Amino acid sequence: MDIGFIGLGKMGRGMAVNLLKAGHRVTVYNRSPDKAEALVQQGAAAARNVADACNAEVVFTMLADDRAVEGVAFDQGGIVASLAPGTTHVSSSTISVALSERLAAAHAEAGQQYAAAPVFGRPDAAAAAKLFVVAAGAPQVLQPLSPLFDAIGQRTFVVSERPHTANLVKLSGNFLIASAIESVSEAAALVAKDGVDKQQYVDILTSTLFAAPAYQTYGGLIARREFEPAGMAATLGLKDVRLVLAAAEQLEVPLPVASVLRDRLLTLVATGGGHLDWSALATLADRDAGLLSDESA
Amino acid sequence: MDIGFIGLGKMGRGMAVNLLKAGHRVTVYNRSPDKAEALVQQGAAAARNVADACNAEVVFTMLADDRAVEGVAFDQGGIVASLAPGTTHVSSSTISVALSERLAAAHAEAGQQYAAAPVFGRPDAAAAAKLFVVAAGAPQVLQPLSPLFDAIGQRTFVVSERPHTANLVKLSGNFLIASAIESVSEAAALVAKDGVDKQQYVDILTSTLFAAPAYQTYGGLIARREFEPAGMAATLGLKDVRLVLAAAEQLEVPLPVASVLRDRLLTLVATGGGHLDWSALATLADRDAGLLSDESA
Amino acid sequence: MDIGFIGLGKMGRGMAVNLLKAGHRVTVYNRSPDKAEALVQQGAAAARNVADACNAEVVFTMLADDRAVEGVAFDQGGIVASLAPGTTHVSSSTISVALSERLAAAHAEAGQQYAAAPVFGRPDAAAAAKLFVVAAGAPQVLQPLSPLFDAIGQRTFVVSERPHTANLVKLSGNFLIASAIESVSEAAALVAKDGVDKQQYVDILTSTLFAAPAYQTYGGLIARREFEPAGMAATLGLKDVRLVLAAAEQLEVPLPVASVLRDRLLTLVATGGGHLDWSALATLADRDAGLLSDESA
Amino acid sequence: MDIGFIGLGKMGRGMAVNLLKAGHRVTVYNRSPDKAEALVQQGAAAARNVADACNAEVVFTMLADDRAVEGVAFDQGGIVASLAPGTTHVSSSTISVALSERLAAAHAEAGQQYAAAPVFGRPDAAAAAKLFVVAAGAPQVLQPLSPLFDAIGQRTFVVSERPHTANLVKLSGNFLIASAIESVSEAAALVAKDGVDKQQYVDILTSTLFAAPAYQTYGGLIARREFEPAGMAATLGLKDVRLVLAAAEQLEVPLPVASVLRDRLLTLVATGGGHLDWSALATLADRDAGLLSDESA
Repeated sequence: MDIGFIGLGKMGRGMAVNLLKAGHRVTVYNRSPDKAEALVQQGAAAARNVADACNAEVVFTMLADDRAVEGVAFDQGGIVASLAPGTTHVSSSTISVALSERLAAAHAEAGQQYAAAPVFGRPDAAAAAKLFVVAAGAPQVLQPLSPLFDAIGQRTFVVSERPHTANLVKLSGNFLIASAIESVSEAAALVAKDGVDKQQYVDILTSTLFAAPAYQTYGGLIARREFEPAGMAATLGLKDVRLVLAAAEQLEVPLPVASVLRDRLLTLVATGGGHLDWSALATLADRDAGLLSDESA
Repeated sequence: MDIGFIGLGKMGRGMAVNLLKAGHRVTVYNRSPDKAEALVQQGAAAARNVADACNAEVVFTMLADDRAVEGVAFDQGGIVASLAPGTTHVSSSTISVALSERLAAAHAEAGQQYAAAPVFGRPDAAAAAKLFVVAAGAPQVLQPLSPLFDAIGQRTFVVSERPHTANLVKLSGNFLIASAIESVSEAAALVAKDGVDKQQYVDILTSTLFAAPAYQTYGGLIARREFEPAGMAATLGLKDVRLVLAAAEQLEVPLPVASVLRDRLLTLVATGGGHLDWSALATLADRDAGLLSDESA
Repeated sequence: MDIGFIGLGKMGRGMAVNLLKAGHRVTVYNRSPDKAEALVQQGAAAARNVADACNAEVVFTMLADDRAVEGVAFDQGGIVASLAPGTTHVSSSTISVALSERLAAAHAEAGQQYAAAPVFGRPDAAAAAKLFVVAAGAPQVLQPLSPLFDAIGQRTFVVSERPHTANLVKLSGNFLIASAIESVSEAAALVAKDGVDKQQYVDILTSTLFAAPAYQTYGGLIARREFEPAGMAATLGLKDVRLVLAAAEQLEVPLPVASVLRDRLLTLVATGGGHLDWSALATLADRDAGLLSDESA
Repeated sequence: MDIGFIGLGKMGRGMAVNLLKAGHRVTVYNRSPDKAEALVQQGAAAARNVADACNAEVVFTMLADDRAVEGVAFDQGGIVASLAPGTTHVSSSTISVALSERLAAAHAEAGQQYAAAPVFGRPDAAAAAKLFVVAAGAPQVLQPLSPLFDAIGQRTFVVSERPHTANLVKLSGNFLIASAIESVSEAAALVAKDGVDKQQYVDILTSTLFAAPAYQTYGGLIARREFEPAGMAATLGLKDVRLVLAAAEQLEVPLPVASVLRDRLLTLVATGGGHLDWSALATLADRDAGLLSDESA
């Protein structure tokens, strides 16, 4: 299939490579062109601009946030202006429910197709084609995309015929990760103040009731106090919690734990930790427990 | 080894059986004597009273709460009054840090030994000798207990030389379970209000980032709205969150998420759900999202 | 002075009348024209449209929310398009900090002047010229407005040279009112469950430590369960808490109590109480305490 | 009337003096006897011990906390052991609901009478006989106390025939004060980060909607950052919030705002601020907003 792929960050790169490996023709575009180079080495074509990448049956976008997706979608020479009628935009970025709805409306008006297919997994899973794809869209739009999802992930979950619902599920997953980070941070501060080694504590959790990737990954970072470089920066984590709260307010669903997470992430950002991994919430738990009193707060 | 075992509820029963299977002589005691009968069938001796069960090298207690443990420990004819000097009380109940400290002091004064060895796992794990044992106590006290822990569990974690620390770790684990229940409840209410099937949603979570027993067990109950009979009643869940908050206040460690959990569990109890499984926190999330408005609130 | 006045709701009406009484020429505009009629009876001129009302030295806007202000300000024939250079727009509506910044920029670009002057007080205070005016803007803009503020209020506080800061102060005040409502609601549910009469309780509070208008007004509504008709609907209260949280996030200031208020107001709205006065937060406190179990929840 | 008065701290001293001024015979007792001296100068008799002070028709206690009251009430030679049948113990201390219930039971068993009469007001109000007395007890017990309450306060509220309810009302009032402190702290951090002077901000609040003693007193301390010496130390504030949460849990009433307050006060204590006035919650709001980043955290 002829595929355009826009956004070659840590995640997009691996996804594009796996589409190539599956035998598709992939034309890649990235704002900073050096990132496209590596893909070209592996058989991709390089697009000169967004419109160029849209000369395809399916265009994926995998970008950092709403603003980036709005840019490539709605700007002059963007996807909505460039895609041929009947072709499909697959949005894999973690974006707001509101933007996903706006994209759906714009593509419908332009006679184009749209699906949302955000993914769970970190860059290593993207590289290994082990992502989990959460897809939503009209059945006739999703059906031909199925082999593409298989090429990038280990499993695809179709959650709705309305694209934005996939974005909601993705955001809710990030909320649950943040919730796990915060509660493990609090519990670890508690037992550490009573003398328990945090690494041993996390080992106990992750070899028993919490033997799951989210706890293993973030529990490990918390135990090793390894907050740089950030896999997911606190500023991005705050953004995702904000987006899930905004979607929840639109749907009229209170989320008391998400509200606590928002306050904690905002505190982390306001006190200079925005660039740290969001698991640095653990430093706040330690600070508020008086565990950092010997050092600086 | 000669072992006394006090408390033959859902958990204690399985543990006592596995000690028997490992070849130990086990004398069992339960307030309501019918529960001891089944154990006698499997080779246990029946104690007439607590003091009788204390005629042993090691006495386990596995009881419901502080009050029950205080009764068998401190009452006339209780463990402290009955244990021979040099013998050991192993407390496996989920009790407060404060009571564990009080037991340590009382046994020390009486020339007896004391270890805390609460466990993670539900009744089926107890029956299958698959518990995780969190042990704390003086090394010379714990060392001879090691084969006993091996008989009841799949792995033992020694977390401290001070017994009460094991109780703290156990309580913190229950806090983390409650935290997982509440955040999954909130997320499930959110996506359900947007039309996603809760069972599918939990399947997504538990086959990806949250593929862990705590999420599988409680996510399943939430998706199936299966809150009766309670594996862990909301009243008991509230008690454990209260105990972890009390221990944290003693140690001067704020736990913002635990505070939210306390309020939610208290709401569940106050509105008539104290007998339901603590995963019935999901009914509050649904109620506050207006998802129950067609039914009763 | 020649004054245009846009927005003749419960608040704007009283303010416009008091400007008339102070001897100014006031041209009024309201989307539904019948409301202008009463003012014309009292000496105002009626504008046919927004542009017509802008034929003045100063134009006040006193509208319900951001959307309404955006409409009259930025639409074709709106204030920005119509005001003569050098004349002043005074925004008294409770709007977002972001919109206030946008208005400041648009008026500056158009060579016009802009001040923010939101007010504290309910409709009776507006009618009696007893409002408190929180003003912000450049000194040369504010100075000639001083007699106008005196005409509508009992006191003016100039808080900044940057207009949006007045909006922030106003929103923060509404946050404090909501905070008082929620905490009195919780306390009243508590003592009521122990048998204390809520009216007596509120009397105690408001004749001692909390002898202040916010507590008297809302405490009274809570004690009398008088939630309709709404002085301030829960949906509007939720909007204001959302705006204060948004402004706080922009400034990187966590507000843990405001987060609780947001969840509670959202719960009230989601469960069908959006039209009630925001003091109906008390019904949630009662509900969660099990106090409504005999009636409907 | 013959009155015993136990506890001559900042509050008790003023109360005892005002009972003397009203013409009663007052026998005073304080653990550290030097404090009794000043009262003797003003006409009081000095008791050698608690039992000595109980040789009276009515005995007041005004002590720091549960532990102090338990000591004078239940120890050998304490009030319960010493009071003559038919005489009355008036407990004015801010104690737990549970202890008040225990006192009621003990006095009833000993054939003595018991009333709870905690007060609102700070030491200057105690000295000026301007306290507000919240009284509860059997009507026949309270009736003869009425002139005594008039001697120490400006108004008496009888809230229940069950003494402990007065303690609940008192604790709920302290919860409301803490709530006002925390929300003003958050709001002040917010506007301060946007450049508003905190003193001006508090002036606006306390001359408008929040013109009440609680806001004036604590708003002033917050604006002036005047946290030492403590009028009410953070450790005592935390104790009172803990007691109100404990009473609420007993009554099954969730208090979400009180939970936030508990976490904040606990953070203040854990990070070294236990000796500061509880209005030092404002330092946490500033710290979490990044307002203290130039100084030490």
